[in-house]
Amino acid sequence: MSAIDELVAEFAGLPGIGRKTAQRLTYFLLKQPRDVSARLARAVEALAERVHACSRCGNLTESDPCGICADPRRDQSTVCVVEEASDVLAIERAGEFRGVFHVLGGRLSPLDGVGPENLTIPGLVERVRKGGIREVILATNPTAEGDATAWYLQTALQPLGTRVTRIARGIPAGSTLEYSDRTVVNDALSGRREL
Amino acid sequence: MSAIDELVAEFAGLPGIGRKTAQRLTYFLLKQPRDVSARLARAVEALAERVHACSRCGNLTESDPCGICADPRRDQSTVCVVEEASDVLAIERAGEFRGVFHVLGGRLSPLDGVGPENLTIPGLVERVRKGGIREVILATNPTAEGDATAWYLQTALQPLGTRVTRIARGIPAGSTLEYSDRTVVNDALSGRREL
Repeated sequence: MSAIDELVAEFAGLPGIGRKTAQRLTYFLLKQPRDVSARLARAVEALAERVHACSRCGNLTESDPCGICADPRRDQSTVCVVEEASDVLAIERAGEFRGVFHVLGGRLSPLDGVGPENLTIPGLVERVRKGGIREVILATNPTAEGDATAWYLQTALQPLGTRVTRIARGIPAGSTLEYSDRTVVNDALSGRREL
Repeated sequence: MSAIDELVAEFAGLPGIGRKTAQRLTYFLLKQPRDVSARLARAVEALAERVHACSRCGNLTESDPCGICADPRRDQSTVCVVEEASDVLAIERAGEFRGVFHVLGGRLSPLDGVGPENLTIPGLVERVRKGGIREVILATNPTAEGDATAWYLQTALQPLGTRVTRIARGIPAGSTLEYSDRTVVNDALSGRREL
């Protein structure tokens, strides 16, 4: 296989990148000065070499524990449970959460053979059992599998005496009732609160 | 900068890849076995090392002359002039053209300071002057700059006594009048031919 075809095939293996985009990216690189591809190659390589999971929370990090777990200004008694490390990024980007995280590494999915032991759920239970955690916020996605995972966690954690909460679902800020689907509208109605 | 941020920045520097897509790709790679990023890094590196322009036609190749120029079954007397090597790919994929190519390396663009000497136009004129070329097909894109480039080439090549043609413009197969814009409809009308 030619170097062009090989890179097209590698790019096309990435999510959301079809064959045409893969070709466009490859021909773009061919038109750039050589150090553009050299930098990209180095960055891709360094990723796998330098990044690993935090031994405490499972977030992706280059240090251990990760910068969030090690930060004395973060509230170690509030643990936000998310499915993936990319969710940590989304919450950090939002900028208001001051607690710490627990990354599950996915969601429960019996059909795909993903049970509690395939996620970091035993580690989370252990973390809570050790004490010092006042609240666990279940921030798995508001999908069927994310909800099932939250429900399972709630059942597992409640007996340990910690407060367990679930993130709110409703109409996203900036959107409208008119353009929201049934489920979203019903969630917004049933989740209504006193003003 | 962290390894994650570095790769996100490199991906986001590619055309059509925004910050969110760059993040998605990076986190995808982090979840894959290590050899997935190793293969991608190698493919990106090999590209710049192994691929260069064909000394005859300017097409990107790993051999010199390229496979098309070197192929005895191709009609060396019919030269299709394109803007970029990616256009060669598009025409080869279509599968009917049996001649050879000449890659300009861009299009005339006075505003960006791109004149004939910044493209491979002198090489093309030389190639035609040497003789043996029966027809030059101008396959620059049907855009303002592609048209201007074609017009310039026609003026430069016609005196050499070779036949100079331009690819057809009109409504693309599978599309409809209803969804075509004014220019396309007018091109289709003015380009009409006897049945």
